[in-house]
Amino acid sequence: MPRAEGRKNDQLRPVKITRGFTKNALGSALIENGNTVVLCTASCEERVPFHLRGKHCGWVTGEYSMLPGSTKVRSPREAARGRQGGRTMEIQRLIGRSLRSSVNLEALGERTFTVDCDVLQADGGTRCASITGGFVALIDAINKLKASNKITGEPVIQQIAAVSVGIVSDEIMLDIDYSEDQYAQTDMNFVMTEHGKIIEVQGTAEAKVFSLDELVEMTKLAQAGIAELTDLQTQALSQ
Amino acid sequence: MPRAEGRKNDQLRPVKITRGFTKNALGSALIENGNTVVLCTASCEERVPFHLRGKHCGWVTGEYSMLPGSTKVRSPREAARGRQGGRTMEIQRLIGRSLRSSVNLEALGERTFTVDCDVLQADGGTRCASITGGFVALIDAINKLKASNKITGEPVIQQIAAVSVGIVSDEIMLDIDYSEDQYAQTDMNFVMTEHGKIIEVQGTAEAKVFSLDELVEMTKLAQAGIAELTDLQTQALSQ
Amino acid sequence: MPRAEGRKNDQLRPVKITRGFTKNALGSALIENGNTVVLCTASCEERVPFHLRGKHCGWVTGEYSMLPGSTKVRSPREAARGRQGGRTMEIQRLIGRSLRSSVNLEALGERTFTVDCDVLQADGGTRCASITGGFVALIDAINKLKASNKITGEPVIQQIAAVSVGIVSDEIMLDIDYSEDQYAQTDMNFVMTEHGKIIEVQGTAEAKVFSLDELVEMTKLAQAGIAELTDLQTQALSQ
Amino acid sequence: MPRAEGRKNDQLRPVKITRGFTKNALGSALIENGNTVVLCTASCEERVPFHLRGKHCGWVTGEYSMLPGSTKVRSPREAARGRQGGRTMEIQRLIGRSLRSSVNLEALGERTFTVDCDVLQADGGTRCASITGGFVALIDAINKLKASNKITGEPVIQQIAAVSVGIVSDEIMLDIDYSEDQYAQTDMNFVMTEHGKIIEVQGTAEAKVFSLDELVEMTKLAQAGIAELTDLQTQALSQ
Amino acid sequence: MPRAEGRKNDQLRPVKITRGFTKNALGSALIENGNTVVLCTASCEERVPFHLRGKHCGWVTGEYSMLPGSTKVRSPREAARGRQGGRTMEIQRLIGRSLRSSVNLEALGERTFTVDCDVLQADGGTRCASITGGFVALIDAINKLKASNKITGEPVIQQIAAVSVGIVSDEIMLDIDYSEDQYAQTDMNFVMTEHGKIIEVQGTAEAKVFSLDELVEMTKLAQAGIAELTDLQTQALSQ
Amino acid sequence: MPRAEGRKNDQLRPVKITRGFTKNALGSALIENGNTVVLCTASCEERVPFHLRGKHCGWVTGEYSMLPGSTKVRSPREAARGRQGGRTMEIQRLIGRSLRSSVNLEALGERTFTVDCDVLQADGGTRCASITGGFVALIDAINKLKASNKITGEPVIQQIAAVSVGIVSDEIMLDIDYSEDQYAQTDMNFVMTEHGKIIEVQGTAEAKVFSLDELVEMTKLAQAGIAELTDLQTQALSQ
Repeated sequence: MPRAEGRKNDQLRPVKITRGFTKNALGSALIENGNTVVLCTASCEERVPFHLRGKHCGWVTGEYSMLPGSTKVRSPREAARGRQGGRTMEIQRLIGRSLRSSVNLEALGERTFTVDCDVLQADGGTRCASITGGFVALIDAINKLKASNKITGEPVIQQIAAVSVGIVSDEIMLDIDYSEDQYAQTDMNFVMTEHGKIIEVQGTAEAKVFSLDELVEMTKLAQAGIAELTDLQTQALSQ
Repeated sequence: MPRAEGRKNDQLRPVKITRGFTKNALGSALIENGNTVVLCTASCEERVPFHLRGKHCGWVTGEYSMLPGSTKVRSPREAARGRQGGRTMEIQRLIGRSLRSSVNLEALGERTFTVDCDVLQADGGTRCASITGGFVALIDAINKLKASNKITGEPVIQQIAAVSVGIVSDEIMLDIDYSEDQYAQTDMNFVMTEHGKIIEVQGTAEAKVFSLDELVEMTKLAQAGIAELTDLQTQALSQ
Repeated sequence: MPRAEGRKNDQLRPVKITRGFTKNALGSALIENGNTVVLCTASCEERVPFHLRGKHCGWVTGEYSMLPGSTKVRSPREAARGRQGGRTMEIQRLIGRSLRSSVNLEALGERTFTVDCDVLQADGGTRCASITGGFVALIDAINKLKASNKITGEPVIQQIAAVSVGIVSDEIMLDIDYSEDQYAQTDMNFVMTEHGKIIEVQGTAEAKVFSLDELVEMTKLAQAGIAELTDLQTQALSQ
Repeated sequence: MPRAEGRKNDQLRPVKITRGFTKNALGSALIENGNTVVLCTASCEERVPFHLRGKHCGWVTGEYSMLPGSTKVRSPREAARGRQGGRTMEIQRLIGRSLRSSVNLEALGERTFTVDCDVLQADGGTRCASITGGFVALIDAINKLKASNKITGEPVIQQIAAVSVGIVSDEIMLDIDYSEDQYAQTDMNFVMTEHGKIIEVQGTAEAKVFSLDELVEMTKLAQAGIAELTDLQTQALSQ
Repeated sequence: MPRAEGRKNDQLRPVKITRGFTKNALGSALIENGNTVVLCTASCEERVPFHLRGKHCGWVTGEYSMLPGSTKVRSPREAARGRQGGRTMEIQRLIGRSLRSSVNLEALGERTFTVDCDVLQADGGTRCASITGGFVALIDAINKLKASNKITGEPVIQQIAAVSVGIVSDEIMLDIDYSEDQYAQTDMNFVMTEHGKIIEVQGTAEAKVFSLDELVEMTKLAQAGIAELTDLQTQALSQ
Repeated sequence: MPRAEGRKNDQLRPVKITRGFTKNALGSALIENGNTVVLCTASCEERVPFHLRGKHCGWVTGEYSMLPGSTKVRSPREAARGRQGGRTMEIQRLIGRSLRSSVNLEALGERTFTVDCDVLQADGGTRCASITGGFVALIDAINKLKASNKITGEPVIQQIAAVSVGIVSDEIMLDIDYSEDQYAQTDMNFVMTEHGKIIEVQGTAEAKVFSLDELVEMTKLAQAGIAELTDLQTQALSQ
């Protein structure tokens, strides 16, 4: 089964990152990864969670949601159901941990950055796109505070991005889309620095266990994909 | 106090309606009304609410949300708080009632259309933009079911749109934006047909009561604005 | 279709307002509007919502509920369901806005008045009866604080009441009851001052759109009804 | 410390039961016990809880609420808080169990009676007043179904009522009011038949343990009070 | 119908109390009452509920839960359902009131003890076992604070335990198990001091009313059972 | 910094698995991993989630909770807060996915196994202990249904267990406890078969990124630990 549009196993879908897609939030980026589209905004409040008060330390957190109309079968609105589902919780905890690893919290000052990742259209890989786009929105917001001298010094300690890798029909493939995900034996998500160092790895054998050798091969494929994504982030931030 | 960008009291902000902005939902429209941006999608399920089962009748409902990053001060995510606020409930009830008035529910068949209005950027008038854009998304969805012969006959009975009118500094103004709304004495929302007949009227004297004469004048201004908006809807649906 | 008990189109149902129906709340009024019966109580707390603290300004808010046994088919208890429905939220926001318009919040001092409107028996027009009766309960409470010199000066800036108007079988009728409401083409609610100035107007075309001329005629009918209701309020408050 | 208004230790407060206080619910009674006022309504649905379906058996359940304005310090509305408190749950379970004991569930047919007890004014003893008044509302509803031949045979197996007894300043007193309850060493509630047989007994030593002898004496006092209350119920039901 | 394992009507099931079953909580006891097994832990926080702040007074509260796997038919997890049921609320209020009666709150200092009673295995009498075991956990915790001189003086004013008594087949039986409870006419729970003075009494006639004479007999049986239980508590605390 | 009790980096804490610790649930196991103690029970219902009905397929799900008294600082009870936290959701999704991978769902018949993992005492590694112990409880339950011929054939397709690995002070360590976890640079959890094939891998760089080489080394250490754990499971199941 060849990939859609003749894509190679080690090839990302087309990725486009538009910084400043919306204007009200302090930082903003729209990331399009194939047909997956996520609007990431970063807002800043001059206070920190209770357990950090008075510790001269900032905080970064993430929230995630799929718009009801982002999927072919409508996804019920979590606000109407009265609670966020387990998948949402799991993803937004991942986003928050990943983004926090990219900054020196003490250099942020006593303020909280909330990075909201709202999926406008879903075609697989929404959590990875959220992290990759969310990093751009976060840095966009931090840069504005640096420009207005609210933040002095450099809070960013490493650049991060995320990508998925799957095993489909016994082949290892980069950046699987929704149709591939449906048939994947294994689905892994990697968050890495621009140098390929690992921040988060999450892998699930959906239909067939995998070996250490396969884990190594998947990690290498992810490293290559992450390098491309961090280049695109850099471009978006420099425009 | 002149209006921003030299706008006249009877002038709408620039309005742009993009049909098909996203692909997964059956119907979709992005409406930009000045800096207010709302993504409207229409999804369809082959079932109806409990009280309509077996009555050969369809249903149309609306849901509304502001993305947390749509406002300058971040709006807390209602799914995280565990419930929708009163303002959200009030607005989505208005959207649902308005859209239902535009169709013959029996001609829809036993199916439910849910029109989701998610505000990407808020600058006043989000409920009116949701109705105006939501109508396009709904008709876009209905047209697809007509094209595939799932719906025969014509369920649409009238074209509808919505606009706000305010009294600011004793002057009556069409389509007030967020900065004007902050100082408005009166804030009214009108939902009307393309012929200026009234479907919903909601007016609140924020700071100063108003007279019947003012109510008449505001209604006339709304009728003119609605006529422009229904023209733009027609263009978006014919492209 | 003649109205029940030979009522004319411009005639209110019999209205009775009993101030002081209960004793524990600071202010209290039972309003009977035909078979609609609402118990309104006004309580006062010596604090204000977070966003008003330290601003030398009071607050007035409203809450609304239908007792489960107030309707022929029992209405599920919202506390047992774990949340207030959209209709309840919409109505209590209307009550709160209306009552706030009647007072000078600064003259109240840093205290919050909560006006609870609990429907003991429902036969149409419960939100209007809540506002008309709620005003009496609120003033009853304010008068007690004035009598004990906790409030000096006069916080009341205008007298308000509310009434519904409907179009049934193409006829415009004042103060429609539940049986009429079931068949109404249009259902409007007006909140006005004793001089017929408008504070809130909410109208919905249930089955048939309406014209500006009809809007004008409905407003005039409401003005006449409001004048009668404010007289009855004055009597209840002077006893 | 003498009791208010010279009441003796074995004396009830004045009790008045008005059957048919409201008209929409199938059964209705307003009970006034001194300054405690509870509106009890009984509604009937032609279905039973899931676990009873198909068992030719009915159900009786109770719900309880204090209106926010029923107390001198306003009681927050449970529907607004999003859940019923522990005290409410405890009381409504007691009401339901007590009322179920008075009827033969099989003779009710496959229908559910819900007895709603809403406290309009609270001055101690609201749970007992709810049971005493709730019994009248329930029988009122059952009588209507008997009159319309929906229920044949006699579902009522015993008459029940409830009363509180307290130990205040080492004296045992019947039907304690709120001011006495504040100082009570022990607070007990009894639900009994008209013959003084016990259905429920709940006693709490608030400040000082009590002995078996005191338990016996309190029970006897309750038996006398219950006999008066069941007479009043009988009168209300025969009018 | 003889009791299981030849037990006499006035005989407790075998009871074993293991103090210190877990190590992280300040106080801990596992109580086995026949096949009923409850893990009781007591934790201490250096703060009190809002209404007690600054009053030089401590607080004791109880929480109760049945593990889903504690019953033959799995009990749904209340955290997953999003709320605690009425039975849970009723029981934990009873636990809290009972344990508070055993101590002088002022001698605790401004701290809150929370006694968690989690049922590992349920075979009837779980609320009584929770109180009997919870007392041991609470005293275990208090003793540790006394040993570290955080508490000086003696907060314990009386020893308490709880036991159930039932009427099954017209016979009065001590400490009924689940199989007996299913057929009980009456189910009573007593909380008493080591001297047989009453703290709480709760009795429900499940299938048949009971008399004052039966109430007296049940109370005497409970007094004998409580005396045995308080001996076992003393042993557990002295080891 | 040497490990507690002289433990080597590749050494598990003492592990003890007690099958049948409680009797009411169909399957049961208590797992003690050092001071971490988790009670795992497996219950079975003769029905499946909605989306599986009629598909001749069973289901396995997991639920997880920490008892409030399981930690030194009391963990608030999620049922009382009204919702499960993100960490709980994340863990129970992991437990469910892992256990499902060990069985052929079709061979279970149309029934749901719920494996409840309740942490009685927490000292790090509770999610891994839940999976390792939960597997024993699940197989215990399946074996009972096989013994009673409700399940024929063999649903178990592979044995699974879980273990954590951490990087602490730049050293890779197996089965880290709570005190080590506090200082870990990296915290990874592995779920594997008895042959060291990977089912789930989740790793987080808490304080310092890690390399592919470290990932490989951690995986190998986990494989050795898993082999020991699956031996202990086999012993517990054969007793």
